[in-house]
Amino acid sequence: MNKSIIRYILGMILKIEGFLLTIPCLTALIYGERQGLVYVIVALACIITGTLVSLKKPANYVIYLKEGCISTALSWIVMGMAGAVPFVLTGEIPSYTDALFETISGFTTTGASILNDIEALSRCSLMWRSFTHWIGGMGVLVFLIAIIPMSGGSNINLMRAESPGPSVGKLVPKVRYTARLLYVFYFGLTFLEFLFLIFAGMPVFDAITTSFSTAGTGGFGIKNDSLTSYSVSVQWIVTVFMILFGINFNAYYLIFFGNIKKVLELEEVRYYLGIILFSIVVISCNIYSMCQGLFDTITKSSFQVASIITTAGFTTTDFALWPKTSQIILVMLMFVGACAGSTGGGIKVSRFVILFKTIFKEFNSYIHPHSVKKIKMDGKSIEHDVIRSVNVHMITFIALFAISVFIISFENLDLTTTFTAVATTINNVGPGLELVGPTHNFSDFSVLSKYVFIFDMIAGRLELFPLLILFHPGAWKDFFKKSK
Amino acid sequence: MNKSIIRYILGMILKIEGFLLTIPCLTALIYGERQGLVYVIVALACIITGTLVSLKKPANYVIYLKEGCISTALSWIVMGMAGAVPFVLTGEIPSYTDALFETISGFTTTGASILNDIEALSRCSLMWRSFTHWIGGMGVLVFLIAIIPMSGGSNINLMRAESPGPSVGKLVPKVRYTARLLYVFYFGLTFLEFLFLIFAGMPVFDAITTSFSTAGTGGFGIKNDSLTSYSVSVQWIVTVFMILFGINFNAYYLIFFGNIKKVLELEEVRYYLGIILFSIVVISCNIYSMCQGLFDTITKSSFQVASIITTAGFTTTDFALWPKTSQIILVMLMFVGACAGSTGGGIKVSRFVILFKTIFKEFNSYIHPHSVKKIKMDGKSIEHDVIRSVNVHMITFIALFAISVFIISFENLDLTTTFTAVATTINNVGPGLELVGPTHNFSDFSVLSKYVFIFDMIAGRLELFPLLILFHPGAWKDFFKKSK
Repeated sequence: MNKSIIRYILGMILKIEGFLLTIPCLTALIYGERQGLVYVIVALACIITGTLVSLKKPANYVIYLKEGCISTALSWIVMGMAGAVPFVLTGEIPSYTDALFETISGFTTTGASILNDIEALSRCSLMWRSFTHWIGGMGVLVFLIAIIPMSGGSNINLMRAESPGPSVGKLVPKVRYTARLLYVFYFGLTFLEFLFLIFAGMPVFDAITTSFSTAGTGGFGIKNDSLTSYSVSVQWIVTVFMILFGINFNAYYLIFFGNIKKVLELEEVRYYLGIILFSIVVISCNIYSMCQGLFDTITKSSFQVASIITTAGFTTTDFALWPKTSQIILVMLMFVGACAGSTGGGIKVSRFVILFKTIFKEFNSYIHPHSVKKIKMDGKSIEHDVIRSVNVHMITFIALFAISVFIISFENLDLTTTFTAVATTINNVGPGLELVGPTHNFSDFSVLSKYVFIFDMIAGRLELFPLLILFHPGAWKDFFKKSK
Repeated sequence: MNKSIIRYILGMILKIEGFLLTIPCLTALIYGERQGLVYVIVALACIITGTLVSLKKPANYVIYLKEGCISTALSWIVMGMAGAVPFVLTGEIPSYTDALFETISGFTTTGASILNDIEALSRCSLMWRSFTHWIGGMGVLVFLIAIIPMSGGSNINLMRAESPGPSVGKLVPKVRYTARLLYVFYFGLTFLEFLFLIFAGMPVFDAITTSFSTAGTGGFGIKNDSLTSYSVSVQWIVTVFMILFGINFNAYYLIFFGNIKKVLELEEVRYYLGIILFSIVVISCNIYSMCQGLFDTITKSSFQVASIITTAGFTTTDFALWPKTSQIILVMLMFVGACAGSTGGGIKVSRFVILFKTIFKEFNSYIHPHSVKKIKMDGKSIEHDVIRSVNVHMITFIALFAISVFIISFENLDLTTTFTAVATTINNVGPGLELVGPTHNFSDFSVLSKYVFIFDMIAGRLELFPLLILFHPGAWKDFFKKSK
């Protein structure tokens, strides 16, 4: 095992995090907040530690899938552990477990909170909170790939471990340039949303943090009522941008190079938009009598559908009061999630498309036993390996879900709370129903339960295997041997 | 398509059902109930119609998988429709939808009821209700195979459609003798339970009906409180026999021929017993404070675990009052279900064993990318086709589950009721939680919801595809063409 590359990557990640912490430092400077000092100290500590750890360059830059997974999982854990420190030192979240929950919820773009009063936070902490969404949305290792050179074929294993979806899509032949392009689109779209929000009359600070949270499909707001008190135009802008950030970034590459027709042919995008439309229509009919006219109905249903399917998790209304059909649709959308290769979470639309195609293929085999048609997507046959990995992902997901529900059940809360609390964390959504509904938070859970949720959030963001692999004895077998 | 064989099978099934209806007729004779006349009339109508329909023998007895599925699905529908008639004509269940729900719940060995007062039924109706469990437990087509000759290789397609499990196991090379052996073991075990119950002091009528319900792992009782008011020894006998009927019948074949060592090596049976033991231990710790001492705790937890994992669904206590961890374990056991090749429902232990093995194989492939180990069970490699069909079954199950929950959600009941109502019917268990808990029933659902449950019960019993295939246009394409 190439241990030195893992050490090197962890050092680099810590260094990058240190530099990213300058954003809250700047915020504190602008608003004259003394909490900024804490951020400066933590930033420096990260940069110094990171530099020391990554000082000795690794002998070779070869990363196999195993190393890719281990470094990705450890990077996310280290990032969360370091990122939580400022919350504790400023005294704004005194418990380290709570601070870790909040930070991991940020980086994994979940948006579930343990805070009872968000508005009591300093501006720099609010900024850091929303900025963790932006960092975690596209992924910090993807960022690393974009800036440091690795030997051919190696960085794809990092990308595979961090990028969401059944198969990693390279926009251009070189992974490094793919990573750079992804960040260009990511930055561009975020900036575009910021501009729209400013035009809609949102204050600059609110517009920046909201853009960060939307871009990462995270869901941390800076108000206790999420986005309820903002204007309808702001809500619609966020709705549209949530949907845009939930689209496979391949689409933006195609649009960027003028290939719009091909975008419309992407099956995953079409199903994704189809599901959104269907859900909006059904929920609108279902909640119509509770709203003020048709426009208000569609505003609320569109916002909530976009927010939940993209796993952002913002709210503009307490959907726990909606009729049960609407609630059940929202719970299902949590699992569906956004497109692969987007910043959204959940199981991903493309996985469901593939799985449904296997069902139809099975049906056909009952009618035409000798047919040997292959499953296709976007006109191309899907490799047997991809189908297998999608199936295994689904089963592992169910297993982790069941184990988590079992542990959380010791809280002895009602089944809907238990079920949706796990669903909303493992799918990186944010709010659930009942005691974890839009007007509640995760503060009352025991420490054990909070660590289960932290685990589920990371597992969900990294799509299970990179994190779970840490528990395979084989992953550590030659870790304590002398390095080659 | 061999239409004449489908017609022939349907006729035979109706004829068999007519003969089976003599059991409630005899019951009425013994207890001098005038409702018996209804049963005599329906029995005669079934025999006459069945004889007329199956009068013309089919030109050939070749059954492909498609015909096997269609005849099985139609047989179960016809059986349910005819079996429901006596309940309506006696006036004991005036609504035909309710009567159909009750009968399908019986044949599919679900045991969910729409009756508010079970004890108000006549003895002959109670007998018919419990007897439907026994008929549906082993399967009426398996019975048909045992008695009518078919051309080589054809009856395996009927057996495949009706028998539970990922792959159909033949005890002996000839399917016909396999079917006969299965019925011999089935009858023997049922009779054994009857004897034990009599020795434990149960009245004869109660012992017969309870044996029928246990054997089919159905769960219809003849008392409003299920088995709560019977003695502890009766409850323990039923516990043990539920577990026995949930075991793969291959085991009894091996025991019958003295190969007990091999039985202990059957992986599915070991996992099945392991899950039962684990669940009993956790639930016992969880409910200890609610019970009268250790023995009472273990009696209650063992009974309920056995009842739910085998999908029988008897109750001796209102487990909806138990702590949430116990409730969640029970809900999970509903999905796990019993062994393949048993009379139990659910997804089946062997499917989960196979799926978990694919997870571990995937983990190993991350650590050792070039390993090509095959997944094994009982020392034998599992065919790729079996793994594929297990995966597709799981996905189809989830899809049907989600659609059912969606439709039932229009009842606007709490999510736990909606979720467990679908779970308990699709897994052929019986009771759920909240409004479908042990002290409630399904009478208050709308007609639409009841038909969804009816559909789910049949789909669950036939393991989805044989029923769902009826909705494939290809299944009917050449149905209206002139027969070959």
